[in-house]
Amino acid sequence: MRPGLILFTYLHLAADKRLSRELLRRRVTAVGYETIQLEDSSLPLLAPMSEVAGRLAIQAGSWCLQARSGGRGVLLSGASGVRPGKVVVLGGGIAGLNACRVAAGVGAEVTIMDINPSRLRYLSDLLGGRVTTVMSNRATLEEEVTNSDLVIGAVLVPGARAPRLLSAKMVARMRPGAAIVDLSIDQGGISETSAPTTHARPTFIRNRVVHYCVTNMPAMVPHTSTYALTNATLTYALEIADHGILEAGRIDAAIRQGVNTYDGHVVHPAVAEALKMKPHSVWT
Amino acid sequence: MRPGLILFTYLHLAADKRLSRELLRRRVTAVGYETIQLEDSSLPLLAPMSEVAGRLAIQAGSWCLQARSGGRGVLLSGASGVRPGKVVVLGGGIAGLNACRVAAGVGAEVTIMDINPSRLRYLSDLLGGRVTTVMSNRATLEEEVTNSDLVIGAVLVPGARAPRLLSAKMVARMRPGAAIVDLSIDQGGISETSAPTTHARPTFIRNRVVHYCVTNMPAMVPHTSTYALTNATLTYALEIADHGILEAGRIDAAIRQGVNTYDGHVVHPAVAEALKMKPHSVWT
Amino acid sequence: MRPGLILFTYLHLAADKRLSRELLRRRVTAVGYETIQLEDSSLPLLAPMSEVAGRLAIQAGSWCLQARSGGRGVLLSGASGVRPGKVVVLGGGIAGLNACRVAAGVGAEVTIMDINPSRLRYLSDLLGGRVTTVMSNRATLEEEVTNSDLVIGAVLVPGARAPRLLSAKMVARMRPGAAIVDLSIDQGGISETSAPTTHARPTFIRNRVVHYCVTNMPAMVPHTSTYALTNATLTYALEIADHGILEAGRIDAAIRQGVNTYDGHVVHPAVAEALKMKPHSVWT
Amino acid sequence: MRPGLILFTYLHLAADKRLSRELLRRRVTAVGYETIQLEDSSLPLLAPMSEVAGRLAIQAGSWCLQARSGGRGVLLSGASGVRPGKVVVLGGGIAGLNACRVAAGVGAEVTIMDINPSRLRYLSDLLGGRVTTVMSNRATLEEEVTNSDLVIGAVLVPGARAPRLLSAKMVARMRPGAAIVDLSIDQGGISETSAPTTHARPTFIRNRVVHYCVTNMPAMVPHTSTYALTNATLTYALEIADHGILEAGRIDAAIRQGVNTYDGHVVHPAVAEALKMKPHSVWT
Amino acid sequence: MRPGLILFTYLHLAADKRLSRELLRRRVTAVGYETIQLEDSSLPLLAPMSEVAGRLAIQAGSWCLQARSGGRGVLLSGASGVRPGKVVVLGGGIAGLNACRVAAGVGAEVTIMDINPSRLRYLSDLLGGRVTTVMSNRATLEEEVTNSDLVIGAVLVPGARAPRLLSAKMVARMRPGAAIVDLSIDQGGISETSAPTTHARPTFIRNRVVHYCVTNMPAMVPHTSTYALTNATLTYALEIADHGILEAGRIDAAIRQGVNTYDGHVVHPAVAEALKMKPHSVWT
Amino acid sequence: MRPGLILFTYLHLAADKRLSRELLRRRVTAVGYETIQLEDSSLPLLAPMSEVAGRLAIQAGSWCLQARSGGRGVLLSGASGVRPGKVVVLGGGIAGLNACRVAAGVGAEVTIMDINPSRLRYLSDLLGGRVTTVMSNRATLEEEVTNSDLVIGAVLVPGARAPRLLSAKMVARMRPGAAIVDLSIDQGGISETSAPTTHARPTFIRNRVVHYCVTNMPAMVPHTSTYALTNATLTYALEIADHGILEAGRIDAAIRQGVNTYDGHVVHPAVAEALKMKPHSVWT
Repeated sequence: MRPGLILFTYLHLAADKRLSRELLRRRVTAVGYETIQLEDSSLPLLAPMSEVAGRLAIQAGSWCLQARSGGRGVLLSGASGVRPGKVVVLGGGIAGLNACRVAAGVGAEVTIMDINPSRLRYLSDLLGGRVTTVMSNRATLEEEVTNSDLVIGAVLVPGARAPRLLSAKMVARMRPGAAIVDLSIDQGGISETSAPTTHARPTFIRNRVVHYCVTNMPAMVPHTSTYALTNATLTYALEIADHGILEAGRIDAAIRQGVNTYDGHVVHPAVAEALKMKPHSVWT
Repeated sequence: MRPGLILFTYLHLAADKRLSRELLRRRVTAVGYETIQLEDSSLPLLAPMSEVAGRLAIQAGSWCLQARSGGRGVLLSGASGVRPGKVVVLGGGIAGLNACRVAAGVGAEVTIMDINPSRLRYLSDLLGGRVTTVMSNRATLEEEVTNSDLVIGAVLVPGARAPRLLSAKMVARMRPGAAIVDLSIDQGGISETSAPTTHARPTFIRNRVVHYCVTNMPAMVPHTSTYALTNATLTYALEIADHGILEAGRIDAAIRQGVNTYDGHVVHPAVAEALKMKPHSVWT
Repeated sequence: MRPGLILFTYLHLAADKRLSRELLRRRVTAVGYETIQLEDSSLPLLAPMSEVAGRLAIQAGSWCLQARSGGRGVLLSGASGVRPGKVVVLGGGIAGLNACRVAAGVGAEVTIMDINPSRLRYLSDLLGGRVTTVMSNRATLEEEVTNSDLVIGAVLVPGARAPRLLSAKMVARMRPGAAIVDLSIDQGGISETSAPTTHARPTFIRNRVVHYCVTNMPAMVPHTSTYALTNATLTYALEIADHGILEAGRIDAAIRQGVNTYDGHVVHPAVAEALKMKPHSVWT
Repeated sequence: MRPGLILFTYLHLAADKRLSRELLRRRVTAVGYETIQLEDSSLPLLAPMSEVAGRLAIQAGSWCLQARSGGRGVLLSGASGVRPGKVVVLGGGIAGLNACRVAAGVGAEVTIMDINPSRLRYLSDLLGGRVTTVMSNRATLEEEVTNSDLVIGAVLVPGARAPRLLSAKMVARMRPGAAIVDLSIDQGGISETSAPTTHARPTFIRNRVVHYCVTNMPAMVPHTSTYALTNATLTYALEIADHGILEAGRIDAAIRQGVNTYDGHVVHPAVAEALKMKPHSVWT
Repeated sequence: MRPGLILFTYLHLAADKRLSRELLRRRVTAVGYETIQLEDSSLPLLAPMSEVAGRLAIQAGSWCLQARSGGRGVLLSGASGVRPGKVVVLGGGIAGLNACRVAAGVGAEVTIMDINPSRLRYLSDLLGGRVTTVMSNRATLEEEVTNSDLVIGAVLVPGARAPRLLSAKMVARMRPGAAIVDLSIDQGGISETSAPTTHARPTFIRNRVVHYCVTNMPAMVPHTSTYALTNATLTYALEIADHGILEAGRIDAAIRQGVNTYDGHVVHPAVAEALKMKPHSVWT
Repeated sequence: MRPGLILFTYLHLAADKRLSRELLRRRVTAVGYETIQLEDSSLPLLAPMSEVAGRLAIQAGSWCLQARSGGRGVLLSGASGVRPGKVVVLGGGIAGLNACRVAAGVGAEVTIMDINPSRLRYLSDLLGGRVTTVMSNRATLEEEVTNSDLVIGAVLVPGARAPRLLSAKMVARMRPGAAIVDLSIDQGGISETSAPTTHARPTFIRNRVVHYCVTNMPAMVPHTSTYALTNATLTYALEIADHGILEAGRIDAAIRQGVNTYDGHVVHPAVAEALKMKPHSVWT
């Protein structure tokens, strides 16, 4: 059995039936970065991009807050004698933690919110007194968001739509000229007012708040992103190249999770479900 | 000429005419810690007590905020997922800087206010992102104070009454159960609502705010305070003992500033003025 | 089957037979915060209180060391030119780690002791050079304790009496006016000289050492404690409210561990053992 | 003698003869922010803008390095496993120090260069191990600049043209897509390749390097800048308003330095020289 | 059954057949520190020595870089105005992390390399901006090593030869007078140019690079090492002493892993394999 | 007037009459690094060497504490669960501050002692909680020294013998195997037991304490030292080269202080005094 072409990249087949059918028709072995998953259910090939996006979020947010972008004209660092800007990071995962670090590093006043108490405890242990951790619920969310200069949406529910944490009404109560950088836009965004934007026209203003919702932020810094991604993918690519996909999948469960189509069959259950097909077992 | 007894301690003669007259009558050489002054106009024998008082202020303030003291029941450190308490330090001198350090150290959200831009710049350079510096004016003062859990009064205008920065009305707008620790109480206090208290009954509640206005705070920690003070006084004591007051004053201008009375004459101008006498020149 | 009233709070039934019997008689579904347990055997509804107590311990200890409390008159922060106070934290769990952080934050010289080498390694990695980690054994314990100004007892052996780490004799060899804050007092205390105290009379002096053994320390800061606790309990409360206890227990193993009594039966094995009854299985 | 209108703002009269003549003709008392000078020859009304510009420099530089701006596509923070960007700050004054702090805060690899060994020592004491200090000379400058991703020009020689530290040839040897943010552009810029730009078109590419040379950077963040500037100017404005210019100048030497024209006469020597007039003495 | 003498120490029997045979002949129960292993496959009795060796590595490396040792004459801390030395740590385990911490602490420019992306992410989270993490591959390794002053070899593949990361050719391209401290020398070393050395003659120079390859580095600091080791071994020693080896092994899986020989039989599989014997089961 | 050869280096003529006479005879213009002095009486060409020596002191001290050097076998960093070594730095000048930083950086427990309270306050402000500052007097000195593993002598009284802070008796009471690194050895050393050593034989043991008293420590790291020194000397060398010594001395008072001999005359008063000659005035 000759597996033919192996495609190893971000695929998102569940959302693209035409692509899926073509891959099946041509019997391509399609391995999706986004479905490679470790036993602790972490996603090793999404992590580096979350890291880059989280760090970029503060850079993008600073730009949004400039007067020319329609922002409040606030410098996140403040100045001696002048309060720094206030940043609220929604979501304490990899992207959120990285956004926090950079925001605290530039001297902003930073709050990170999550719904998992032990994650908040870990963040508090790690980041010490430089960042405030706040349990997220309707009341705290409203209070923090409406008092901030910059909101970073960094909520990821794997395989599901991002929760709509901000209603249009809540956004309208934010400070005029405040900004939202919505990293969750790929999963639908954390605000009712979010809508995807492009690198060419990265922002729009809604309810007097600057929105930055570029869907592929790491492309802003291809040099750094490419190294970060390749660091993570190379090991898997070498495993597949060295052993072939069948043997590689036998050795490494993460690769098995990654295979979406094989020899004309849908293998990944979620993709199968999206295509209303029955998943095929390659390794039993 | 035999100068007789030399008294070397805190004197505050301007405020105590009876003591002054007795010292003159008995021809005591009285050298006041509080008038020893260096060329840069710093007060080397007040500095250690400012340091101790500033550090103690947070300890006293934490105690005021406890429910049993009538406070808001707020822990300055907060907890993971719960905002820390907010501390505002009024005055960026030695006491204020030391209060800041401890407050930031326990994990509180700390703002320090002063009216000197270059002092604020130095504090910002020194304390980095852990403390917010805010230029003090009527507007910022009101905003910071009414949004805080703990206000530390650390304003010293040498030789003058402390400015009344807080009116009773402003205090009434503070959060119920908030606290004021007024280190400036010896110079009259920074709040209209302040009044001296004792170690036995350290606090009172006015306008729903807990006030801590103990006049000699370093006495709470005599072990530390004694060493801190002696570290600073010993050098001068030895100079005086080694050379006699006349020679010591000749060598060291700071000691000259310290001499209040000598051989039946008032020497220090400010004391002379308070007693309506003409100051006498010993070193010409 | 109608489960009637659900009681969801700290219960400690093993120590209160009368309460247990009444709950059984009235067929109350009693879910104990203290027996909700995750798979990694952590106790998510005890953790927030350990955090608050740990942070409060330094605040309480500072107060004990003041001259008026009978203490040595030592300021934990020290002063420039004067050694800071020395704090020894016994136990490197959540309470101990939080006590450490605050103690180091105020500028004290801090040692944390534990018997688990890998926990010490983690603490050392996390806290870097600001805190000294010391393996606890009879020799090191004696040396550290007798050279310290403040001992924090933060040892928790889940479901068991706290070990008596300090004998009365060892306490007698401590510096006169030193202090012990015994957070383990609910489990019997870490010192032979410990005995429970109240917020009204929080301390006593034994062997010339100030003892602070208030049994419910977080009540000192109800504002912070309530938020910290509710952050953790709310998720479980909502699960129970949304699904009913039977379904909630089916979904979430932690809730199963939490149920102490149900419909007139003892469910939790430890409670059953204390009451000499046979535990009843609800979920099989 | 009635001085008529007092103009108190940035003036830069030496560079604007027409404005100068008009002020003289109308007998305006013109006080220039930029010539108010303290005894230690610091410029208190330039300092806040240097601070803001220094902090903004990293924000602007990050933006320049993005692919869409023509930059290398490097994220200054790097990522785990990927080197951060390298920033070189030329000049260790207020602007340079603030640029350093922010650059180190975002996680970049930062070098600061100056020609004053004791300033470098102070920076090294203050910034510890997070920033590398390098003595600037032809050899080190070339090495650092050509190995960096981002060069910040922060050299100010008061009252003189900024030194041309970078030749076009040296810029050509920089990494393609690297960036220069030239804060010294108002004084002519630190690079042969620099030329003033505007907020509307902030950058140009020369020798494959992105140049950002906006002449009034603080206008990007008017909210922060206005507060920072007003904090510093207010004291002087009040002095002038309270006492009138003659008395204010008598009391405060800094204000005397600030007066450029008075009652139809040029007062400031440098302005007089630029206009080829004889300076007039108001205070003698 | 009387187990006779129990030997509990570092054994390394696989490499010493004669010792193995003697232990079998005399029916010694030999428990090897190096084979005691926890469920997460960590080696609790190797960890303390890795920690000590990692910290010592920088001390040894500093000494190698001194002119008298044949080194470049570089001070790792640098000086104000002079670049610090550059340290590359190969391997992000316990030894590597500890070497990093000390190197960053003295003020060196530090890079740590590993092939595990999530370990690099953890190191980056923990060490923040003070250390650069770089994914190790042929290209990055060559670049980092040839640009460094000091290379620390801290790679451990449990039970296997250390990988030969540095070829003689790569070493030849290093800066003349640079240094390699090879902590992996016990497993064969990370460089083709490494060869074991002794405390008496700790270094040799090959390809103009100073090599430090002492096989038992912790012996340099016996005071610290003994405490570190005993902290970890004592618990196991007491378990064995309290219960006897059979019962101790029943209770504690780590001890079972530790037993190499028992009652004349080889128990540990790896030792058995080395001796070409069949392993004997004691606990079934 | 042609000044002939200009010699610009460390001279120390007061201690070398023969050299002085030869310089006079040959009419050499001898400018001594060690007598160039700024208005604030700092010594800009000694400062870089103090910095390097201070940082080296910890490196040398670590080496002394190793078993093979006769030391206690203590690792300054300690290990997790094992106390770090204790370092006492005597003298809070440039060398002392730099020794402190490195010692704290490696994780040692560090105390710095001085007799100047405001210097101690500055050190405490700068170094925060990582270093303990202690006022030096007979009692504290004895206590700190006898409880330490490593004593760094960093006391400089410009132009005078270093004070003998440690008597042989006090050294005898130190821990056996402790170490003294005496940076003040050039001025006679801070201990009665100190005596100059060489790079070839850097240490000796007296009273069971390892002494390291190499007279020219920066020569251990010539690469770093040369850059550090040249950074500071170059400006002066260029001034002299550009203007000739007469004009350079006219412009720059520091250079005037540096000239020791000129055209056959002794110029520097201290050198003149040592040679019992009358100093000659070049600039009047």
